[in-house]
Formats: sequence, structure tokens, C-alpha cells
Amino acid sequence: MSKFRLDEVDHQILDMLIDNTRVPFTDIAKKLLISAGTVHVRVKKMEDAGIIMGSSLVLDYDKLGYSFIAYVGVFLNNTSQTKFVLERINEIPYVTVASVTTGKFNIFCKIRAKDTKHAKDVIFMIDDIEGVYRTETMISLEESINDKKRLMHTIFKEM
Amino acid sequence: MSKFRLDEVDHQILDMLIDNTRVPFTDIAKKLLISAGTVHVRVKKMEDAGIIMGSSLVLDYDKLGYSFIAYVGVFLNNTSQTKFVLERINEIPYVTVASVTTGKFNIFCKIRAKDTKHAKDVIFMIDDIEGVYRTETMISLEESINDKKRLMHTIFKEM
Amino acid sequence: MSKFRLDEVDHQILDMLIDNTRVPFTDIAKKLLISAGTVHVRVKKMEDAGIIMGSSLVLDYDKLGYSFIAYVGVFLNNTSQTKFVLERINEIPYVTVASVTTGKFNIFCKIRAKDTKHAKDVIFMIDDIEGVYRTETMISLEESINDKKRLMHTIFKEM
Amino acid sequence: MSKFRLDEVDHQILDMLIDNTRVPFTDIAKKLLISAGTVHVRVKKMEDAGIIMGSSLVLDYDKLGYSFIAYVGVFLNNTSQTKFVLERINEIPYVTVASVTTGKFNIFCKIRAKDTKHAKDVIFMIDDIEGVYRTETMISLEESINDKKRLMHTIFKEM
Amino acid sequence: MSKFRLDEVDHQILDMLIDNTRVPFTDIAKKLLISAGTVHVRVKKMEDAGIIMGSSLVLDYDKLGYSFIAYVGVFLNNTSQTKFVLERINEIPYVTVASVTTGKFNIFCKIRAKDTKHAKDVIFMIDDIEGVYRTETMISLEESINDKKRLMHTIFKEM
Amino acid sequence: MSKFRLDEVDHQILDMLIDNTRVPFTDIAKKLLISAGTVHVRVKKMEDAGIIMGSSLVLDYDKLGYSFIAYVGVFLNNTSQTKFVLERINEIPYVTVASVTTGKFNIFCKIRAKDTKHAKDVIFMIDDIEGVYRTETMISLEESINDKKRLMHTIFKEM
Amino acid sequence: MSKFRLDEVDHQILDMLIDNTRVPFTDIAKKLLISAGTVHVRVKKMEDAGIIMGSSLVLDYDKLGYSFIAYVGVFLNNTSQTKFVLERINEIPYVTVASVTTGKFNIFCKIRAKDTKHAKDVIFMIDDIEGVYRTETMISLEESINDKKRLMHTIFKEM
Amino acid sequence: MSKFRLDEVDHQILDMLIDNTRVPFTDIAKKLLISAGTVHVRVKKMEDAGIIMGSSLVLDYDKLGYSFIAYVGVFLNNTSQTKFVLERINEIPYVTVASVTTGKFNIFCKIRAKDTKHAKDVIFMIDDIEGVYRTETMISLEESINDKKRLMHTIFKEM
Repeated sequence: MSKFRLDEVDHQILDMLIDNTRVPFTDIAKKLLISAGTVHVRVKKMEDAGIIMGSSLVLDYDKLGYSFIAYVGVFLNNTSQTKFVLERINEIPYVTVASVTTGKFNIFCKIRAKDTKHAKDVIFMIDDIEGVYRTETMISLEESINDKKRLMHTIFKEM
Repeated sequence: MSKFRLDEVDHQILDMLIDNTRVPFTDIAKKLLISAGTVHVRVKKMEDAGIIMGSSLVLDYDKLGYSFIAYVGVFLNNTSQTKFVLERINEIPYVTVASVTTGKFNIFCKIRAKDTKHAKDVIFMIDDIEGVYRTETMISLEESINDKKRLMHTIFKEM
Repeated sequence: MSKFRLDEVDHQILDMLIDNTRVPFTDIAKKLLISAGTVHVRVKKMEDAGIIMGSSLVLDYDKLGYSFIAYVGVFLNNTSQTKFVLERINEIPYVTVASVTTGKFNIFCKIRAKDTKHAKDVIFMIDDIEGVYRTETMISLEESINDKKRLMHTIFKEM
Repeated sequence: MSKFRLDEVDHQILDMLIDNTRVPFTDIAKKLLISAGTVHVRVKKMEDAGIIMGSSLVLDYDKLGYSFIAYVGVFLNNTSQTKFVLERINEIPYVTVASVTTGKFNIFCKIRAKDTKHAKDVIFMIDDIEGVYRTETMISLEESINDKKRLMHTIFKEM
Repeated sequence: MSKFRLDEVDHQILDMLIDNTRVPFTDIAKKLLISAGTVHVRVKKMEDAGIIMGSSLVLDYDKLGYSFIAYVGVFLNNTSQTKFVLERINEIPYVTVASVTTGKFNIFCKIRAKDTKHAKDVIFMIDDIEGVYRTETMISLEESINDKKRLMHTIFKEM
Repeated sequence: MSKFRLDEVDHQILDMLIDNTRVPFTDIAKKLLISAGTVHVRVKKMEDAGIIMGSSLVLDYDKLGYSFIAYVGVFLNNTSQTKFVLERINEIPYVTVASVTTGKFNIFCKIRAKDTKHAKDVIFMIDDIEGVYRTETMISLEESINDKKRLMHTIFKEM
Repeated sequence: MSKFRLDEVDHQILDMLIDNTRVPFTDIAKKLLISAGTVHVRVKKMEDAGIIMGSSLVLDYDKLGYSFIAYVGVFLNNTSQTKFVLERINEIPYVTVASVTTGKFNIFCKIRAKDTKHAKDVIFMIDDIEGVYRTETMISLEESINDKKRLMHTIFKEM
Repeated sequence: MSKFRLDEVDHQILDMLIDNTRVPFTDIAKKLLISAGTVHVRVKKMEDAGIIMGSSLVLDYDKLGYSFIAYVGVFLNNTSQTKFVLERINEIPYVTVASVTTGKFNIFCKIRAKDTKHAKDVIFMIDDIEGVYRTETMISLEESINDKKRLMHTIFKEM
């Protein structure tokens, strides 16, 4: 649990990459008054340390026909099946997030689907996994916030 | 709700960018046997159409000291306050996702915090918003899946 | 609570009308070996007694763009507002059924909407009625049975 | 999901039939200043397209001795049994509506019965279906609204 | 469901017996200005009709060492076991009331016990019945009303 | 909380009265081989000690038109209102039992009514009491056991 | 259930020991103007009577790395397994309290763990006990009161 | 959050004190083959570091007439009142533990009382605190485990 130490320059580099992962290193270098090589070395170091795990596109799922979002709480027959069930859930691409949780559910998932009918199919895929006892679904009528950038900037400001 | 039409080349470009947003366009061009200019034009077109909304870093929050994840269900005094409360929630950077939901909660949030004590502070920030009547929290003991890439690839394979 | 007495002929007339309200009285008469006038008199009598309250079309809501069905449980601030709230609910055409119920809800509604977004709007209309304290929604992923004809035939067979 | 196109005349015909399915086509023709043949053709076309699925009587169930209405939530042992259980439920004429639902129930039914004792019998019929794990019942103390005509008119006004 | 007809004199006799089942018939006769024989005949008639099913002592359970009252909700594995389980419950004298109920419980019982420890034993007796899946207990901190006499008088006043 | 001491003779007298409160004291005397005067003295002593609080008729409510039984859980705005609300509840004769309870309800009542419609009226009377925040109702589909005699006999056998 | 009688001197001795179990008997003797031998005799007597069962250290669990507190509700398959499951729970040192409870849980535990990950392991240990059907966890964000001394002083003041 | 370092000798001293806080330091010294002065210094050091916060008697509450244990979940009107309500709860000596919790309750308490009636009084004291919206109580039928000593020994064995 010992944390990697990031200095002020690392923070500023991350601050720029958070807003646009495709920004050229030469632009970052110019802005921070350091050499592009330094930017390269710093980013490499943060990748090696596992702090930067990769980058991902932010797509508009509505435009791609996937506007249906739901949260599915999963009850297991027995928690000894947790690992097995998570592996089966991992085979369903429509599940984008899955956590082992406290409270009434054993596992809690977020799914994206095309519409009500497709959501039913995805929920039934989860229901049909061996060891899954029951599921309970809560539908998102509108996802108003989905933004980790504010958190990332806050983390670096705080450090 | 009419959808933008993506062709096979668009899909292949997206497929490569999903895995690494920083892959140079020349690499994409070489792989797909098209010109880098074509890649550029296609990406630009998908950005203009709003399909590609941006890109984001995938960071290791554990290594950054933010290993605590919780889901917070919010009850409002009245749903006419939904918009106002969402704006206040949006000012709390530790809330990374917020949805208007069916079921017992009016709004459902995902938060990231440093530890139990910090989580309490974040939950109290939400509780203190005018119009929030009560919150109920479910803690993630382990986030096993957090991966939209599988979904993105599936979407393009299906289209 | 004293019941209107229907005889065998009434039952047979109803049995035919249940399957098709537009069947000509002459067809009914021919089938039952009675005069069309008798059919007319009997139907009139059942209408006057209030047993036949009218007729309605069975439309395919999916084809009309209304494929979203949800059940909305309504909590009131006080049951003395029940009548007032039901009158307001009655002004929302998307609510097709509303009952005063036992259990955790005060009023229980069935709604039909175009899609998730429209459903949210309809739910908010209910939420915004004065006296409504909270609502809880359960979404129908697929309406498999919606058929009163089986019941009607059973009632007449039993009598 | 491509929708059948209805024009203004179709809407007006439907608007009249909604209020009284037995209105003669000649009356509709006179009102809309078109020929009875046109009415006939239009209705036929809407029937063929599956928009008009039939017609049904509106009966006064109270007067027929069926004044007891309840909603029954069904929990299944496993959702793979959904189809089988729905077929068994379909054999019980006292169930007028059944949906596959999100939330805590797998299937949600509406039933009509003669009285408390009869309701118990109907609930037990559902409970006894293989694959049904448990049911939970909510009783309607008074059905205040049961009217799809407002919705139908709204749909045609909106189109 | 046809009701036995009680006349004014029957009501007055019942009204007196409700307050004290041991009141001599001669006292009733004097008060109502009828003969003791008439009182006897009327009471006999009401007993034969099954309206008067018997009489019971009202004891002070606190003074007898049974001050602990609890309500126990019973979940069954399957409602087909209802009759069998009720017979087993009937063998436990500490259960004074048991109903088949709607809502989340299959059977709902009232129990009287000596103290917390004894209550636990009684609850475990119910839990151990074959077919009982789970129980949920709600403890009465103080029984403020337990009086059917007000209801009986009201019934006779209303008739 | 010191208990009144009952001896073997008291128990035997109570055992006979429990089954029939109207049994003449001479019959009890004959059976127990004691004098009628002794029976009288003993009963008087138990009445004075408050152990015997009175006697009540066991009526067949079904035959009297009161076949509807429900349990109503009451939520208060504040428990400081408990005493006041219980006094108001005590004015409703259809409430036969009311307890202050642990668990989710503040007060828990048993009601008897004529039918569904009457039950709704009684529930609304409770709902309309000042200080009552909400009620939740559970309907008895069949009261299978309602018998304190088994308990009474057990108490005296145990002592 | 007959209680041991403590006199005023016993109370005063206990009052001093409650605040500091290590206070020398000579100090207690001086304060109460009695001999140290008397203190010794009295304490011995209370230990023999089982009133004083021992003494325990009050440690700062946060400083020892055990800052995570949770309450775990346990559902059993059958209450006949209660004793067996409690014995298994007793083998898990991280469970500091366990009660057989009324309400929805069969057994209710308090656990202390190092952090979220460790808590998950402890909860899974409980989940894996044969006869445990499901658990539900509630996390303590901050233990504000944990103090039996106030109660002890109150008990002795009251006696 | 940096932890005080305890060495092997400290652990052994604590291990002995955990079982009996009144064990003389000379006994500890003899057992561990160190001087009594060293024991004294080590204990003093652990007290100064705040690891040892004090000691408490383990009393038999049953024998003292306090055999009733309950858990009380508290709902607040608003979490901004948490601190104020905890201060009021702290004035009730019958509350031995109180935590700010996740899940449905804002504050979760453990209380000890003499009997059902006294428990009601204690619960009402909590209910009457300004800012407390509602409470929900779960009664302990039997406290089977209440033992931190196993945990303490485990902690020191692990370190």
C-alpha cells in the first residue's frame, strides 16, 4: 500500500493528458517549459509504475444505439461461488462494471443495452449463470454525470 | 434518434483506438492499408458527428490512494428538485457517476474516496444538499470488472 | 350488491361479443336460433343494467410507438389526499390503470410510454402532483399476458 | 421497429372507433365526409398491419361478482423457467395481465377474483406452479382508473 | 353467505352477554321485560345457528407470568404446505392466532411467552416445522388495546 | 411484578371456566368435590386479584357479516404522539387489537371489517389521525387459528 | 433469576473499579474508610457470585491497525443450525459480538477488521459456514460511542 | 495513520493483561524473565502512546437485572444533525455503543435495558431527540458471543 511519489511536473503532465490523451508530447513540453524527452520519460515511468494503466475512448453510446443503462444486483447461492460467477459475468460484454458489495447484494453490476428487450436478454444471461440465485434490476432513466476527469484533477491538486 | 452510419473502415479504426487512444494514425493507416489522411478524415468525421466524444486516461486509483468505492442511493424530497440536486452533486468531484433511476432511489451515484473516513465526508456532502432527504450507501468490497472495451468491440462487431 | 340475473341466452350473446364486438346482431341471431330483435333487446337490457359498459379497440401499442410499460407505486403525504391525487393522475393520459392499494403503496398505477426518456417524464408528472410524497417504479420488460377474454368466458361458463 | 404510417383520416376513424367499436361505418363515413368503402378499406388496412388487433367488451366486473382485484408479484427459482411459468399462468383465467419485470419480482400479475377466499385459491394456483418460489400479494382496495381510451386519443393527437 | 337474521331482542340479549357472559338469564329477562324462557330460547337459537360459538375468560396474562407478546411472520418453502404447517402450529399452545396472509409472509402468528428466552424457544418451535423456510419476529412492547367488545356492540347497533 | 399464588383447586376451577364461562358453580363444585361456596369464594378472590378480568362471548364474525380481517402497521411522525394516537385508535371499534411494537412499525393493529370497501374506510380512519404518518396493510386471507384456550390450559398445567 | 443483593459499600467499590480496574485495594479502602481486607472480601464475594466476571483492557483499535467495524446480519437455512453456526462463528476472532435476534436476521454479528479487503475476507469466512444462507453487511463509518461505564455507574446509582 | 511499533515483549505483556487486568506487574515480570520496572515502563509507554486506553470490569448484566439487549437503528431528518444527535444519545446511559453507519440507518445503537417495558422507555428517549426521524429496533434473544479477548490475542499474534 506504499504509494508511488509523483512530483509537480508529473501532475502537470497528467493534468494535460486527462483532458486529451492524444495531445502530442511536444505540446506538453512547450506548455511546461521542459523537453519532449522529459515528458516521454515521465509518462513511461508512470506507465511502468502502473499509475497510468492505459487510455480509452469516450464514445456517445446513445448515438451507437446503446442508450439503455441498468444496475443489476446479484444474489448468490453461496459466496464461495463469487470468483466463478465473476468470471462468467466477465464473458458478457454488456456488463461494464461489476463489484463485490456489502448490503443486500453479493455482486452489483452496471449494464448497457440497446433497449428494454435487449436489457431483458442481458439480465437473463446473468440470471442463468450457475450459482446465481436471483437478480434485482434498477433502471437508469438518464445518466446525468459520468466523468472521472473532475476526480483526476482533484487528486492531483490535492497531492 | 436517427443513427450515424459507420462503415467497416470506421469500425476498424475505432477498434484500434479503443485499445490505445495514443496509437499514431500512421500505424492505423499501415495496418488497414489506407492513407493516414483517410484515417484523419474518418476520425474527424466521427468526432464531428459526436460519436467520439474524447478520450480519457485509465489510472490505477489504488496506487493514487483512492481505493474506496461506494454506491450512494439518494432520496429527494421532491423530484422537481432533481435538476438542482444533480448540479450540486456535479460540484463534488468524488462522485464519478450519477443517474436518475427507477426503483426506490431518485438518484444513484458512484463515489470514490480515500478511506472510510473520507467516504463519510463525501456522503455527508451529498446529504447536505438542499432537497436531499436521505441517502443509503452500499460499499464495494472489490471492483472486479471495470471495462468498457469489451462492450465497444462488441458494438462494432455487431454493426 | 344484488346481482343482475343473466340467463343462458345472455351468456351466449356475451360469449360471441367478447371475441368480436363488431359481429352483426344478425350473425348472433342465426347462430343462437333466435331473432335479431331478441339479440338487440338483450344487449340493450345488459347495457341498461350496466353490465356492458361499452367496447374498446385492442391496439398494438408497440406498432404505435408506445412499447414502454411500467408500474408506479405512489406514496402520499396523507391518505386524505387520495381523491385529489387520483383526479390529478386522471389528467395524465399515459396512466391507464390506477388503484388504491394495501401494502406499502397508497396508489398503484400502470403507465405506457414511448421510451425510457418519455417514461421519466410521465413519472415526473406523477411525482409533481401536490400530495405525492415519493414514487417507486418497476419496469415491464415484456408484457406476456394481457387478456380479459379468458376471464370473461370463464365467468359466463361458471354462472 | 419501423412504424406503420397512419394519416389524418386513419386517426379520425380510430378516434371514433375507440369510443364505440360498434359504430356503423356509414356513420363514420358521414362524419368524415368520405365514402363507407373508404372507411372499410382503411380499417381493413389497419387490421392487416396489425395495428388494430381486435375489439373487446368493457364489462362491469362488480356486477358480475368479480370485485376483488389484486397484484401478485412472483419470484422464480430461476429465470430460465420464465417461459414455462408464464405458460402455466396463462392457463389460469383469473390472471388478466402478466409481465416480466425489473425490480424484486420476476413476473408481476394482475388477478380478478370473487372475494378474499377465491383470491386465496387463485394465489395458491400460482404458488403451486413448478418453478415458482414465492409470491407476494398487494390488494386493490378500489380501482379508480382503468381507461386506455384517453391514451389512445392522445396517441393519435400527437402523431 | 346468507346471514342469519337477528331481531332487536336478540341484539339486546347479546349486548348484555358481551359485557358479562355469566349474567343470569333472569336478570336479562327483567331488564328487557321478557320472560327468562324467551331469553333461553333466543340464546339457544343463536347457539344453534352458530352465531354464539361459546364464551371465554379474559385473564390478566401479566399476572400469570405471560407478559411477552410477539408477532411472527412465517415464510413457507411452498404454499402447498400451508395446511400441514398450520396443523403443526396448532400444536404449539403459545400461538394464539394464526392467519394465511397477503404480502410478504405466508402465515402470520401472534404468540404469548413468559420472557425473551421463552419467546426464543417458541419461535424456534415454529422455525423447526418442516416446510417453514424462515420467520421474522416483531415484538410488542405494550399491548394497549385488546378488546372485541367495542366491535360487538357496534355490530349490533349497526344491524 | 410479584405473582398471585394459585393453588391446584384454583387451577381446576379455571380449567372448567375456560371451556365454558357459563358453567354453574354447583357443577364445578360437584366435579371437584368441594362446596359451591368454595367455588364462589375462589372465583371472587381471583377476580379481586385481577387474574380473572371478565368473560367474553365467542361470536362467529363471518355469520355477522364481518369476515374481513387485516393487520395494519402504523408509522408515527414522532413516538411522543404514541399515547395520543392510541387514544384516537381506541375510538375506532373496528380495531380489536393495538400494540406498540419494535421493528419498522410504531403501532401494529388488527382490524375487522365487512368487506374490501369497508376495510378501506377503516384504514383511512387510522390514516387520518393526527400524528399518523403512513400505514401499511396486510390482509388475512383466512384466520386458521384464534384460540387462547390451549394457552390457558397450558399455563395452568405448567404452574 | 433471583438477584444477588449488593449493598452500598459494594456499589462504591464497583464504582471505583469501573473507572480503573487496576486501582489498588488499599486506595479503595482509604477512600471508603474501610479496611483493605474488607475490600478484598467484598470483591471476592462478587466474583464468586458471578457478578464480576473479570476485567478487560480498553485498547485503541485504530492505533493497532483495526479501524474497520461492520455489522453482519446472518440468515440461516434453518434455525435448528443456530447452535452449530454460533460455534463456527466463535472460531473467527474478528467477530467480537454475536446475538440471536428477532427481525429479519437469525444471527447478528459485530466484526473488526483491518480494512475493506480484510473485512471482505472475514465476511466470506462467515458466509462459508455450513448452514449460513446469506449475510448482509452494514459498515460503521465512525464509532462515536463505545462505553459501558456510564451504564455501570447508572446501574449502581439506581440500586 | 502511522502505527506505534510494539515489540515482542510488549505483545507478551498485553497478552497477560488482556486475560486479567489486575495481574500484578511482578507476576508478569517473573513469567517473561524481565524486571518489574521494565513491565512498568512498557505499560506506561503503551498508555502514553494511547494504545492502552484503560481497563474495564466485565460484569454479568443478567445478574444485575439488565438482561434485555436490543439494536436500534436511527433515521435522522438530516445528516447535518448527526453530531448533535450523538451528543444527546451520549446522555442516555443505556446506550452502550453508537455508530454512524452506511446502509439504511444513519446511526446504529446497542442498548441494554431491564425488560421489555424499560426497553420501550429507552427507545422512546432516543425517538424524542430533536432531529431523530424514526427508529427501528431488533431485539437480541440471546447474546452468544461478546468477547474481544480472542481478537486482542489474534492481533498480537499477527503483528
